[in-house]
Amino acid sequence: MKILFVRGPDATHMLAESPFIDGLRKLGEYTDLPVSADISPEELASIIRQYDVLLTMWDNIAIPAELAEDSGRLKYVCNITGSLKPWIPPEIILSDNIIVTNWGDLPANCVAEGAFTLVLAMLKSLPAYVMNIRRGGWTPPFLHKSGSLYGLRLGMYGMGAIGRRFVELCKPFQPVIYVYDPYIRELPEGCIRVDSLENLFDVSQAVAVHAALSPETHKSITAELLARLPDDAIIVNTARGGVFDQQALFAELESGRLRAGLDVLDEEEFHDTLVPDHPARQWENCLFTAHSISLDGWGKTEHSYSAMYDRALENITRFANKQPVNYIMDFERYQKST
Amino acid sequence: MKILFVRGPDATHMLAESPFIDGLRKLGEYTDLPVSADISPEELASIIRQYDVLLTMWDNIAIPAELAEDSGRLKYVCNITGSLKPWIPPEIILSDNIIVTNWGDLPANCVAEGAFTLVLAMLKSLPAYVMNIRRGGWTPPFLHKSGSLYGLRLGMYGMGAIGRRFVELCKPFQPVIYVYDPYIRELPEGCIRVDSLENLFDVSQAVAVHAALSPETHKSITAELLARLPDDAIIVNTARGGVFDQQALFAELESGRLRAGLDVLDEEEFHDTLVPDHPARQWENCLFTAHSISLDGWGKTEHSYSAMYDRALENITRFANKQPVNYIMDFERYQKST
Repeated sequence: MKILFVRGPDATHMLAESPFIDGLRKLGEYTDLPVSADISPEELASIIRQYDVLLTMWDNIAIPAELAEDSGRLKYVCNITGSLKPWIPPEIILSDNIIVTNWGDLPANCVAEGAFTLVLAMLKSLPAYVMNIRRGGWTPPFLHKSGSLYGLRLGMYGMGAIGRRFVELCKPFQPVIYVYDPYIRELPEGCIRVDSLENLFDVSQAVAVHAALSPETHKSITAELLARLPDDAIIVNTARGGVFDQQALFAELESGRLRAGLDVLDEEEFHDTLVPDHPARQWENCLFTAHSISLDGWGKTEHSYSAMYDRALENITRFANKQPVNYIMDFERYQKST
Repeated sequence: MKILFVRGPDATHMLAESPFIDGLRKLGEYTDLPVSADISPEELASIIRQYDVLLTMWDNIAIPAELAEDSGRLKYVCNITGSLKPWIPPEIILSDNIIVTNWGDLPANCVAEGAFTLVLAMLKSLPAYVMNIRRGGWTPPFLHKSGSLYGLRLGMYGMGAIGRRFVELCKPFQPVIYVYDPYIRELPEGCIRVDSLENLFDVSQAVAVHAALSPETHKSITAELLARLPDDAIIVNTARGGVFDQQALFAELESGRLRAGLDVLDEEEFHDTLVPDHPARQWENCLFTAHSISLDGWGKTEHSYSAMYDRALENITRFANKQPVNYIMDFERYQKST
């Protein structure tokens, strides 16, 4: 079995040596092939056709769509991480010659915990605490805004693997959970379904976004929806910034009417960051966590990413042994994914 | 039945009119009696002897110990709130003539949620995020310190009502919980008992303090114990600051070696506050929440304190109907309480 990793100029995540690479070498012949960004699709396709398994992950270069029809030896694309749309075109997903897998629900735990942290942090106005203490204050003037999850009307937009884990984490805190997700037939026990975003924002005191970015969800949270929330209501976004009308959200935050814990920003507008002198950086009703609230490596004895490599190696081993692989990305999921 | 509230000069919490007061008036004759701070114990005792029920709560003036022997009509002291040592002397607790109750485990939910918020906030270094963003940074340079409760070795010092609730909140996050509490025979399911503070600090990556302040716990967390924690370990204190050797704790925080979420400070040393120019206010490995992290009134339709008045009214109703009252304060609990 021949296994290929195409190392584009931005592919800094994959190590040259690691227990994962050792594991691959036990299964077959492994090649880590550096390529330049301007390699032609034809040339790249002709290389990939000589391998049985192609590894992909964050910051890969794009895989040529023409492999879908003329795949050569290629039978399996193992995407080690989550997102895959930027480097795996839909033709590959639809190809009968090629299976594509990703990491499944692997990051659900840590993303849900990150989202949960942001909800509690904003319920307690922690950024305002930090600044009040620095200015020489003590008892904060915003104590009337200090809330609890107990009995809170918590709206969830999206109920995939991360949303389900988020519901589990919430359970002992006993919020009242409302869910809007038109794609999910069965909700976790105790959740209340609402049938429109309008109804979700009408009923919620805090909204956590766990929806993927797709044509349906793009800028789906509008100024009109945000206006339905009560004063000091909380927005938490650990999904994708593009789900919001970012200008509408920032208008509500600049005025101080809402509170937000934002792990992500609209990539079209902000490239998921804020310029160094952006006034939003000083807003005390906001917590920006630079797409990193879910990192969880501290104090762990193993490398924090080891689980995703373990999962990929398990799948490639299954493929080598002609067993069915897990976490296959079908076209319906692909379309809904970010 | 005659019910008395003695309104000392600092007793600002008790309202003159409220649904609670209405409820008392239905049960008997209620008197709200303003007294000056320099009323003699003899005079105060002679007034209280004319009532069946005495109400006490936060910031009360002290009740004369001589009532224990010569109690007159007084049979029941209903302390609406938690702490009672500053205004109810031990003689009253030990008196066969008088029953004393308090709010039982009422604040356990919100204090446990506050402590939990501080653990997550410090695991994610949220104060450092707030400051990094303000300085114009984005991806934080401290991501390697970002942790998760999942699998975290979490030490708990004290396992009363608040500690038990804290364990419930932790459950879906799956930390490994170690407990030191020599007074508690049975721990919640899944907790691991350790038999000394030395062992607790040897094994923990984060320590949450839920012990009452008592001669045994006073300054019981020493420099020697803190040194046993690994680098970047987390201290959370929502109990009483006096449980720590505050100077030892501050030395570990000033050096940046540990992280801490502190709702309370040593009252002897700091009067539970920091002077406006105290350098600790700028430490980014610390979150100070001014004894208010447990407040939870935002977004609730009823007054956030109503539950404690409901509980007191229920007890006084039981007393009026000659039923046994709840949350009786016995001498053993009194000694251990703050």
